Amino acid sequence: MRDESRKEQATIPKERSRSPEEGRKRAKIEGVEPQIDGGTFPAKRILGDEIIVEADAFCDGHDALTCILRYRHESEQNWRSTDMEPLGNDRWRASFEAARLGHYLFKPVAWVDHFKTWRLDLHKRLEAGQEVTQELLIGADLVEAAADRADAKTRPLLQEWVTMLRHPTDDPDLPVPSATETPMTPSRATAYHALSSELAELVALCPDRTLATEYGTELSVQVDREKARFSTWYELFPRSAAETGRHGTFEDVERLLPYIKDMGFDVLYLPPIHPIGRMKRKGPNNVPTAEDGDPGSPWGIGAKEGGHKAVHPELGTLDDFRRLLRKVEEEDMEIALDIALQCAPDHPYVRDHPEWFRKRPDGSIQYAENPPKKYQDIYPFDFETDAWRELWDELASIFLFWIEQGVRIFRVDNPHTKPFDFWQWMIARVRAEHPDVIFLSEAFTRPKVMYRLAKLGFSQSYTYFTWRNSKDELRDYVETLTTEPVRDFFRPNFWPNTPDILPEYLQTGGRPGFMVRLALAATLTSNYGIYGPAFELQAAMPARPGSEEYLHSEKYEIREWDLDRADSLRGFIGRVNRIRRENPALQETHNVRFHDTDNDEILAYSKATRDGSNVVLVVVNLDPHHRQSGWVDLDLDALGVGPDDTHADHEEYVVHDELGGERFLWHGSRSYVELRPDQMPVHIFRVSRRARSEADFEYYM
Amino acid sequence: MRDESRKEQATIPKERSRSPEEGRKRAKIEGVEPQIDGGTFPAKRILGDEIIVEADAFCDGHDALTCILRYRHESEQNWRSTDMEPLGNDRWRASFEAARLGHYLFKPVAWVDHFKTWRLDLHKRLEAGQEVTQELLIGADLVEAAADRADAKTRPLLQEWVTMLRHPTDDPDLPVPSATETPMTPSRATAYHALSSELAELVALCPDRTLATEYGTELSVQVDREKARFSTWYELFPRSAAETGRHGTFEDVERLLPYIKDMGFDVLYLPPIHPIGRMKRKGPNNVPTAEDGDPGSPWGIGAKEGGHKAVHPELGTLDDFRRLLRKVEEEDMEIALDIALQCAPDHPYVRDHPEWFRKRPDGSIQYAENPPKKYQDIYPFDFETDAWRELWDELASIFLFWIEQGVRIFRVDNPHTKPFDFWQWMIARVRAEHPDVIFLSEAFTRPKVMYRLAKLGFSQSYTYFTWRNSKDELRDYVETLTTEPVRDFFRPNFWPNTPDILPEYLQTGGRPGFMVRLALAATLTSNYGIYGPAFELQAAMPARPGSEEYLHSEKYEIREWDLDRADSLRGFIGRVNRIRRENPALQETHNVRFHDTDNDEILAYSKATRDGSNVVLVVVNLDPHHRQSGWVDLDLDALGVGPDDTHADHEEYVVHDELGGERFLWHGSRSYVELRPDQMPVHIFRVSRRARSEADFEYYM
Repeated sequence: MRDESRKEQATIPKERSRSPEEGRKRAKIEGVEPQIDGGTFPAKRILGDEIIVEADAFCDGHDALTCILRYRHESEQNWRSTDMEPLGNDRWRASFEAARLGHYLFKPVAWVDHFKTWRLDLHKRLEAGQEVTQELLIGADLVEAAADRADAKTRPLLQEWVTMLRHPTDDPDLPVPSATETPMTPSRATAYHALSSELAELVALCPDRTLATEYGTELSVQVDREKARFSTWYELFPRSAAETGRHGTFEDVERLLPYIKDMGFDVLYLPPIHPIGRMKRKGPNNVPTAEDGDPGSPWGIGAKEGGHKAVHPELGTLDDFRRLLRKVEEEDMEIALDIALQCAPDHPYVRDHPEWFRKRPDGSIQYAENPPKKYQDIYPFDFETDAWRELWDELASIFLFWIEQGVRIFRVDNPHTKPFDFWQWMIARVRAEHPDVIFLSEAFTRPKVMYRLAKLGFSQSYTYFTWRNSKDELRDYVETLTTEPVRDFFRPNFWPNTPDILPEYLQTGGRPGFMVRLALAATLTSNYGIYGPAFELQAAMPARPGSEEYLHSEKYEIREWDLDRADSLRGFIGRVNRIRRENPALQETHNVRFHDTDNDEILAYSKATRDGSNVVLVVVNLDPHHRQSGWVDLDLDALGVGPDDTHADHEEYVVHDELGGERFLWHGSRSYVELRPDQMPVHIFRVSRRARSEADFEYYM
Repeated sequence: MRDESRKEQATIPKERSRSPEEGRKRAKIEGVEPQIDGGTFPAKRILGDEIIVEADAFCDGHDALTCILRYRHESEQNWRSTDMEPLGNDRWRASFEAARLGHYLFKPVAWVDHFKTWRLDLHKRLEAGQEVTQELLIGADLVEAAADRADAKTRPLLQEWVTMLRHPTDDPDLPVPSATETPMTPSRATAYHALSSELAELVALCPDRTLATEYGTELSVQVDREKARFSTWYELFPRSAAETGRHGTFEDVERLLPYIKDMGFDVLYLPPIHPIGRMKRKGPNNVPTAEDGDPGSPWGIGAKEGGHKAVHPELGTLDDFRRLLRKVEEEDMEIALDIALQCAPDHPYVRDHPEWFRKRPDGSIQYAENPPKKYQDIYPFDFETDAWRELWDELASIFLFWIEQGVRIFRVDNPHTKPFDFWQWMIARVRAEHPDVIFLSEAFTRPKVMYRLAKLGFSQSYTYFTWRNSKDELRDYVETLTTEPVRDFFRPNFWPNTPDILPEYLQTGGRPGFMVRLALAATLTSNYGIYGPAFELQAAMPARPGSEEYLHSEKYEIREWDLDRADSLRGFIGRVNRIRRENPALQETHNVRFHDTDNDEILAYSKATRDGSNVVLVVVNLDPHHRQSGWVDLDLDALGVGPDDTHADHEEYVVHDELGGERFLWHGSRSYVELRPDQMPVHIFRVSRRARSEADFEYYM
C-alpha cells in the first residue's frame, strides 16, 4: 500500500489554512442581479417598487438547496431575510418592497439543505415502492438536529416527530395514499406522514446554516422618490417673466404659475439665480463685450453682491425666492435650481480663495478654454488644487444652502467637467441627510462619461434625444437606454430644445415639427422637459445658418414673449401632459415596446403597466411636411390583446385616440394609419380589449 | 458674505479622510476585458497567443489621458507595462504575448496627462493663429517637472528644452510650417519646434503618475499549452485490446498505436486503469451481480490489489504502464487518464479511512444513490466530513502520483458530484507545479454547473453536442459556446459517442450518420474525440429500445473488435483528421461562422485563421437517409473573398473539397450544393481567392 499513503504535505497552498467550515461550503452563488459594475454602484428604483433580485445558485451533486435573500435598509442594523424561489435552470428569485428612501443592501445566501433532500428523496423512494426503515432513522437524526436549534415553542413539536420517526406506528388513522401498489408497512405509513408540509415548515424554522455560502459582494439599490421617474419640466428665464421689457422678478414668475400649471408641468426649472458677473460679461448674441444695461449670462456667476449662495438682486431677495418656492408648492409643482460650479472673474471666491483656481505664468487666473476657443468670462475651479478638501466642502455647502431654503431638485450644469469622485462624494453626502433630493445631470458628452455620472448618483440625465430624429435613430437609442444594464442606472430626461440647443428639426419643421418632438419626448420617456416660452411659441430662428444657437438667445438678453398668441402650442402641450397624468403606462420609461411599420416616417410604440390595466399605443408621423400613411405590425401580446384562454381566436380591440378623441375597433395585428401633419401628426391611443357582452351592442338598452 | 462661509463640518462623511492624492485622481477605468465574473476567475488563453486587453478609460473635462497596461507572469516580481492605444469612444487596447504557461496578472492604469494636453492644445492654438507666449512658459514648467523625474541620461536633454521654451529664439533654422498665414514670431516658431515627437518621447519617459488611477481589480489570464485548444481524442478500453477474447494488456495497446495514429488521433484516453472492486461487482449489461470471470466496471475502483494509485493486475504492472506512456510519446501522442473519485466497497480507503464516507444508521456505508436508483457498487466520498482537509490532500495526491509517472492529461469523471472548491484548490495546486497539465471535465449536467467547473480551472469540457442534431440546435449551441463570456472560459470537446452514450442519431443513421457526426465534431470544435473501436465499426445497437446504453457495453465486459472490417470508417476518420492537421483554421473553435442555407437539412459554416491565410468552409447534409440539395448564402467577408480594393466587382473564388478532391470555381454569394449520404454527406472545402493572372488559364504554358 505504499502508493496509498503518499502525500505532498510540502506543497500545500495557503488556502488550506482556512476555517474548519470553509472547505465544506458546497453552495455557489453567481450572476446576481441587479448589479452595476460588479456592485460598485447601486441600481436605481423608486419608493414603493417591488425590488426583484435574481441569482444563480447551485451545489455539486444531487442535493437540494435552500436560498434566501438577506436585505436591509442602510439605516437598519439587522438583516431581514426572505426565501428565494427557484425559477428553473438554477435561477432563483426573491423580492422586497422599497419602503424607504435611501439605499437598501442585499446579498443572497444559499446552503445544501439535507432535510429538504431527504424529504424529496423519501417521496421518490415511496413512489418506487421501496422500504424506508433506514431512511426514517436518517430523517429522525435530521429532525433531532433541527430541534436542537429550535426555539422553546418549536422544539417539543419537532421532538414528537423524532419519536414518531424512530418508532414507526401502524396507527390506522395515519393519512396514507390509498392507491399505492406496495403493501403498506408501519415504516412506509410513517414515511408518508412525514412528507406532510407541517414537518417541513417546522424544520424550515430552524435551518442549519453552518455551511451556508454568502454571495461575495454586498449589492445595493438606491431608492428615489416617484418624481425621479415621472416628471414634466418647464424651463423659464425669470428675467423674461415681466409683462413689459423690464427685468423680470420672482414675483413675475409667481404670476406665470397658473399658465405653467395649465400646461401640465410639475417642475419649474430656473437657470442660475445668482448675481451675474460684470467683468468680461458677454453681450447679446454672445458678443465678447457687453454694453451698459446688457444683463449678461446667468451662468456667469458671482459679483460683488455675492456668489452661489446669493440671489441676483434684480430678481428679488432670498425671501422673495422662498415665497416663490411656497407658491410653486401650493400649485403642486416644484422648483429645480440650476447649479453651475464655475465663477465669473468678479465672484467673491476668486478674491477669497485664489488657491481654488489655476494661475497662468503671468499671474492671471486661468479662464475656461477648449482650445482654440477661450471663455474669458468663466473661471473653472482647479480640482487638482492641494486645497481640494476645502473646495469640495464649500461646493457641497452650496447645495445644502439651497436645500435649506426648500429646494429639492437640482439641474447640474456640465457635471462632466468636474471630477467624478467629487460628485459621488457630494451626492452621497447630500442624500445621506436628504434622500428626497433629485439631481439632473446636464452632460452632453460621450456616452461612457454620461453613464458614469448616472452610475455614481445622478437621478436623471440629459440625453442625445435632441439629435435623434429618424425612426431607426429613435428606436435604437430608446432601446439602448431601456435595456440592461443601462436601464438600471440611467434615467433619461428628454428635451426637444434647451436654451443652448435649437435643433435643425425644429428650425425647419414648423408647428407640426414642434408637436412631433413634444409628443415623442412626452411619451417615449417618463421624464421630459421643454425650454419655454420659446417652445410653445415655436421660436425657430438660429443665431446664424447651420448654428443650433437661438438668435437673440435668452442666455444673453431679456426676451418678451406673447404667451397668448393664437398659434401657441400651450393647448396641445396641456393635452399631452394630461394624457401622461391619466395613463400610468406613460409614467415609466422601461416599458416601451416598438412595433414595426412599413413606412420609415411612421414610428409606433406602446407602453403598458405591469398589471396590464393601462396600455397606450403611440403612432407618430416623423415627417412634419407631408401626409404619411402605412401599416403597423402590432405585437398584440405587448398590447395585452393577444389570444389567451378567454379570447382564443378573435383579436378585436378598441383603440381610443386620447388626443383626437376618435375610437376605432381594430382586428388582428395589422392596422392602417394615416397622419396629416397639418392636422395632428400623432395618435396617442389608449388600447382596451373589447368587452364582448350584449351590452356592447347599440340596440341593447 | 455670510452665506459664502457656511460649512457643514459636522456631517463630513468618512471618505474625506483619504490620502492627499485620492480626491484628485480624475481618471476612471471601467469595462476591462477579458474578465470573468468580476475577476473571480481567469480567462483562458494558449501559449504564444497575443493577449488582448481592452478597457474604458476617461476623465472629466477635456484633458488628455495616458493609459497603460501593467502585467506580469505570476512567477515574476516586477510589473511590466505597455501603452494602451485609444480606439475611440473612450475604449483603449493593449496586448502582450503569452510567453509562459501559468497565470498572467494584469491591470490597466490611467492618468490625466498634462503635457499631452498642453501639446495637443498648443497645436490647435497655433493652427488658429494665436500667440502662445504664456503657453510656452506653461510648457516649460511641465518639461522641467519631467526633468526632475528623469534619469541622468534624459534630464539634460529635457533641460535644454526648458531653456528653449523659456527663451524663444528666432533661429532661422527652426523647422516651421512654411504656409501658415499668421506672421511667425519667435514664440510661435519655438512652439512649432516644441511639437516635435522628440520632446514628446522624452517627456513620456518620465511620466507623472502621482495621480494615476489603477483599476480596482487585478485580473488574470490562464495560459495553457496548445493541446488544450487543439486535440483529437480516441477512447479505448485496454482490456478489449487483445486480438483474441483474453483480457487485453498495456502491451496489447502498444500494438494498436499505429492503428490509432493512422487515424490521426493525438490523445489516447484510457478509462480507469485501477484494480476493479469485487464486492457488488456489476455483470454484463449492468446486471446487479457478476458471475465469476466477469471483469466488472473500470469505474468500480479499488480492491485488495490497491486503489487509485495502483494498476489493475490484468492490464500489467506500473512499469508496463510507464512503457506504454513512452511508446505513446514516441508516436507524438499522449495518454489521458480517467480519474473517477469514488470507491468500490473493497477499496482500501474504505477500510483505512472510514471517516471519509457517510454511515447509514445500520452502520453500513452509504452507497451512491439518485433516488430511487441505487448504485451499491459505488461508495462516494463524504466531502462534508470533518476530515475534509486530509481527504483533499489524498485526492490531490492521486493526480500528483500519475503526473509523476508521466501523465499530463486527465479526464475527470463526474466532477459535478464533488465540491467546486475542491476542484479549484486541487487544480491550482497541481498547476502551480505542473502548468502543462490538462483537465477535461466530464460533467453532463446543467449548464451553469458545467460553466462553473470550466471557470474554476478545467481546461476542456464535455458538452451537449451529443444531443444536438438539427441545424438550429447545432447553430444555436455552437454560437452560445463561442460568444462572450462563455468562449473566454469554456473550451468545448465534442464527442459523437461515449461508452455511456450511444445517441439515437447513431442508432438509426447508419454509416452516413456516423460520418456526419464525426465531421461535425471534428470541424465545429478544435477539441473532439470518439469512443472506439465502437465508433469506426459503427456499433449501433442499444441495450434496449429507447436506451442510450450500448448493448454489451464495454463498461461491463470485454469486447472483440474486427478492426479490419471493410466498412470501417478508419479511412474516413484518418482523412478528416489529416484535414484538421493541415488546416490551422480548424485548430480553433471561436472562429466559427455560420452561413444561411435554404434547406433545413443542410448546415454550412466556415472557419478562418486570424490572418486569413487559411479558410475552410464545411457543408453538411444532416439527413443520413436522403440526398439533400439547396442554396447556401455565403458571407463572402467571412470567407475572405468579399470585394476589396483589388477585387472590386468580381467575386470569384476557388473551393477545393479536401475530402472528395473536387475543385469548383464559385461566383458571388449564393452557391448550389447537393450531398448524397450514400456517397459523401459532407464537403470540407478549402477556400481561396482566385489568383487572376494569365497563368490561371489552361492555354497558358
